[in-house]
Amino acid sequence: MPRLAGYLVDGLSIGGIETCIDFPELKLCFDLGRCPDPAVQRPTVLFTHAHMDHMGGVAWHASTRELRQLSPPTYVVPRENAADFARLFEVWRALDRGDLPHQLVALGPGDEFELPCKLVARPFRSPHRVPTQGYVLWKRHRKLRPEFLGHSSDELRRLSAELGPALYDWTETPEIAFTGDTLIEVLEREPTLLRTRLLVIETTFVDERVSVEKARSKAHIHLDEFLQRAELFQNEAILLTHFSSRYRDVDVLRALERLPASLRSRVTPLLGSGSA
Amino acid sequence: MPRLAGYLVDGLSIGGIETCIDFPELKLCFDLGRCPDPAVQRPTVLFTHAHMDHMGGVAWHASTRELRQLSPPTYVVPRENAADFARLFEVWRALDRGDLPHQLVALGPGDEFELPCKLVARPFRSPHRVPTQGYVLWKRHRKLRPEFLGHSSDELRRLSAELGPALYDWTETPEIAFTGDTLIEVLEREPTLLRTRLLVIETTFVDERVSVEKARSKAHIHLDEFLQRAELFQNEAILLTHFSSRYRDVDVLRALERLPASLRSRVTPLLGSGSA
Repeated sequence: MPRLAGYLVDGLSIGGIETCIDFPELKLCFDLGRCPDPAVQRPTVLFTHAHMDHMGGVAWHASTRELRQLSPPTYVVPRENAADFARLFEVWRALDRGDLPHQLVALGPGDEFELPCKLVARPFRSPHRVPTQGYVLWKRHRKLRPEFLGHSSDELRRLSAELGPALYDWTETPEIAFTGDTLIEVLEREPTLLRTRLLVIETTFVDERVSVEKARSKAHIHLDEFLQRAELFQNEAILLTHFSSRYRDVDVLRALERLPASLRSRVTPLLGSGSA
Repeated sequence: MPRLAGYLVDGLSIGGIETCIDFPELKLCFDLGRCPDPAVQRPTVLFTHAHMDHMGGVAWHASTRELRQLSPPTYVVPRENAADFARLFEVWRALDRGDLPHQLVALGPGDEFELPCKLVARPFRSPHRVPTQGYVLWKRHRKLRPEFLGHSSDELRRLSAELGPALYDWTETPEIAFTGDTLIEVLEREPTLLRTRLLVIETTFVDERVSVEKARSKAHIHLDEFLQRAELFQNEAILLTHFSSRYRDVDVLRALERLPASLRSRVTPLLGSGSA
């Protein structure tokens, strides 16, 4: 389980089969796939879209948390999926006869949601075949406003009760982004992606077995497109995900040799899931 | 992967978590759990009931078969679940936007369904907390009727065209049974279970950590109840499944030492799924 830009990250991601990007210490994951065992322990799941390989395990996740007497999970879903997502749980309650308790949070670009880990999630549109959104997780930093410097701690307590957050200057840093399934144009639509500390991005296709054109027709990224933009990435670390099941780990590693060293040193592929 | 009573059987079964009993050579499985990888290859799934740990992976199964261009699967489900099962797929089509092609076969006690492997499935009622049915798979044997013995092959071809199946005496043998989740009383309700060549039965609880009374209150079988009926089982082989996740493999094996040798030698526990 690698630590990238300070964040422990794990998961499973095979294009079309299942994707779950897991941040154990943040107690959240992006998407669920079939819901691998560790994801049962995550009380927050941010869904990028409703394709089966990303959302298929959601009812099992809720049910298994209920059985294990874990807290009701929070599911963040694109606004476009909220009604059908709710229907899915209605149907499963009729089938399974369990309560399947959870909180549904419908979110879209322009919205934000403060996560229990204190990071703030803001969705952005990812161009894909179905409504899809990625998420940037922002960290808020506060600094006492200059006019309050030098006050005693008693005075600051009084001021804090009176002024609340206005006691501070607030800044934000983009910590983590996950694109979900997308065309490469997501980088132009959401330039913040180029400067998040950790960028988790899909590169479904990595070599000549599938052309860039074919990759684009499926609304996925080809490693060639990623490579063409090598100069743009300012991220501390980049996790590449969603490799097609046609590739073995060695195929992916060989393909990554084409990246310039300055980029390659910051790139980690999420391996171990493809064809044997 | 053991061969029991001539049948290759595999799978995964943890009480409350996930159950999929896989017969690779028969190209079918009973229940799906989350849908373990090998189950994707099974075009026929017989469901015992709609609890999440048995049915949770069905939409993912259909979707992944579609992606891999495998034939549309056949899902045999209890009559009571058929309408909600169909609704489940309607909702998933709206979410995933895939066709999720499959054939739904609603079956109940008294019905029968000829499987592609030529065995005939007949459901029986298993007493559990929700509508549940097990299945006995029967093999049909034919023998030329005595009055046609001694006819030439030409004559027999003509008679076959004329008489069809009536040319033969037909007998049936019960080959495989799977109980699903159930109380022990299923053995009285369906005495055939005692003489199927292979019996797959649940014994969720195996030792004093959970009492027989407690097991019964959850509508599951305790190994003590199985043991009390040791003399009754005429099966060639018995596969015990659905052990609670509280047990380690060694706990199960230790508990099985209490079985009389004549029974123990025919019993295989489905291990490898419980707590580490």
